[in-house]
Amino acid sequence: MVAFSSNILDSRSEYRTETELDDALKEPTTRYFAIAQGKLVMRVDGVAPEGLLAAPDLAAMQPQNADAVLIGWDRDNVAFIAMPVAIEADDLPEMYKAIDTRSVYRQALLTEEKLGAYAQGTSLVSWALTNRFCGTCGCAMTPKAGGYRRSCQACGHNVFPRTDPVAIMLIVDEANDRCLLGRSPHFAPGMYSCLAGFIEPGETIEDAVRRETREESGIRIDRVRYHASQPWPMPHTLMIGVYAEAKSLDIARDTVELEDCRWFSRTETEAMLSTALGQADASAPPPGAIAHRLMRDWLDWSR
Amino acid sequence: MVAFSSNILDSRSEYRTETELDDALKEPTTRYFAIAQGKLVMRVDGVAPEGLLAAPDLAAMQPQNADAVLIGWDRDNVAFIAMPVAIEADDLPEMYKAIDTRSVYRQALLTEEKLGAYAQGTSLVSWALTNRFCGTCGCAMTPKAGGYRRSCQACGHNVFPRTDPVAIMLIVDEANDRCLLGRSPHFAPGMYSCLAGFIEPGETIEDAVRRETREESGIRIDRVRYHASQPWPMPHTLMIGVYAEAKSLDIARDTVELEDCRWFSRTETEAMLSTALGQADASAPPPGAIAHRLMRDWLDWSR
Repeated sequence: MVAFSSNILDSRSEYRTETELDDALKEPTTRYFAIAQGKLVMRVDGVAPEGLLAAPDLAAMQPQNADAVLIGWDRDNVAFIAMPVAIEADDLPEMYKAIDTRSVYRQALLTEEKLGAYAQGTSLVSWALTNRFCGTCGCAMTPKAGGYRRSCQACGHNVFPRTDPVAIMLIVDEANDRCLLGRSPHFAPGMYSCLAGFIEPGETIEDAVRRETREESGIRIDRVRYHASQPWPMPHTLMIGVYAEAKSLDIARDTVELEDCRWFSRTETEAMLSTALGQADASAPPPGAIAHRLMRDWLDWSR
Repeated sequence: MVAFSSNILDSRSEYRTETELDDALKEPTTRYFAIAQGKLVMRVDGVAPEGLLAAPDLAAMQPQNADAVLIGWDRDNVAFIAMPVAIEADDLPEMYKAIDTRSVYRQALLTEEKLGAYAQGTSLVSWALTNRFCGTCGCAMTPKAGGYRRSCQACGHNVFPRTDPVAIMLIVDEANDRCLLGRSPHFAPGMYSCLAGFIEPGETIEDAVRRETREESGIRIDRVRYHASQPWPMPHTLMIGVYAEAKSLDIARDTVELEDCRWFSRTETEAMLSTALGQADASAPPPGAIAHRLMRDWLDWSR
């Protein structure tokens, strides 16, 4: 299982009425993901289940109702709202803490299902906050359909939530039983991962894999095989995980994007996956990351 | 081969300098896709190869240099620019004609390679025109990197080209050797196609397939298998084509989205693919559409 992929809320996103968000804001059972400058505000006094917030928690946090998004409803018909708050994380009362999305996931601070709902909520809030004004005419946008659409009152332009597809590829040298991994200068020390890049308008997934691999490593790609996908809410990415067969082996690294890029044997890859971050020369992304899964499944399936 | 997928221009998108677009605008060999309200302006007097435009053609069309995008360079180092023009299609001189993207593709007015480059160009121009103002603060955006990025001088917010991933699925009832197709009220008369829908933030591809299929047809999905992808430049979509195994068979159609939705036998599907649009009770999308390819490959592979 990859992280962020277990959202079970019913979004009813195509059947929204214009009153549902307001109704949910008035309903005391509604639960909130409060988002302060991109971080999740959780209760840390042990009172609220999973640290989730209710309406009274928000009172002192300067909630920005105009950019809130109604994510959906759970099995018990409890509504979940993602609510941007203007308070600075440092100014929060002691019983709350603002935690970045990466830590929420790595420290397993939410159940898989709540983490999936939060992923959707924080993606939608990021999109809402960067679409407060109309890109076509510059006037203010008004949220519609519980925040699933934003509409310009001046020119009528509509915008819908944005999802950025990224190709992430485990490049395999089948003849020599090795895989290609690289490290970006901003990775944690010692961590290596799959190459990846945004799919551009006008490209297929397969073309993007070939272009990105060539740009970053100089390697030419033969066959591309889709493996799995993962939502990655930083801010609103869809990771599309593939295996790519290398048809050339000499690496010409992009020295701006990558600090290192090299072939790893099966044994080395196995060791990286079982090494905690920072405890060895090379380590892999943590379980839950699609890169980890691509590496793990390559080892398990081609044995 | 699916349409729009054969762009061979080198975009060098990650290595752009701030002078390349201006340099290309001054270079007489540069070729232009002039785009008038979303339509491609082509020369129809037979003078220019493939109807492509050069700088003198643009003079009377009110070119909008600030929203132009340098798409890339061909093998001979000729630059291609997608240039929005403000002239109304009806006001064009007689030697030009503005043609919608769907017709450019269906009538094969460009070679596959030029069609792919145009797909990228028109997607980028659509994105540029809807990002003239900053969504965060409402101020004017300035194009950077040959139009591959737009940046706000006031608040520093950057936006990158947008690609909207859509899941498109051929739903197969394996036990009875049938596939599920639907028709939207805005389809050409008699045309049926695969169900499809935008992937939302926070969803995997597979979750989106299950949700959209359930919403539109009431059918529950078992296994999902990726097949192929296609850029679809209306305005900037990435079609992700999959096969989805039905695990329920009773259709509960979404009567708003779909005018009809039903199971088609192998024989019926074969007949639809070989029927020209409008010449029979039911027809399929044309060759080049990923829905056509999903249907064709299902017939060929499971024989």
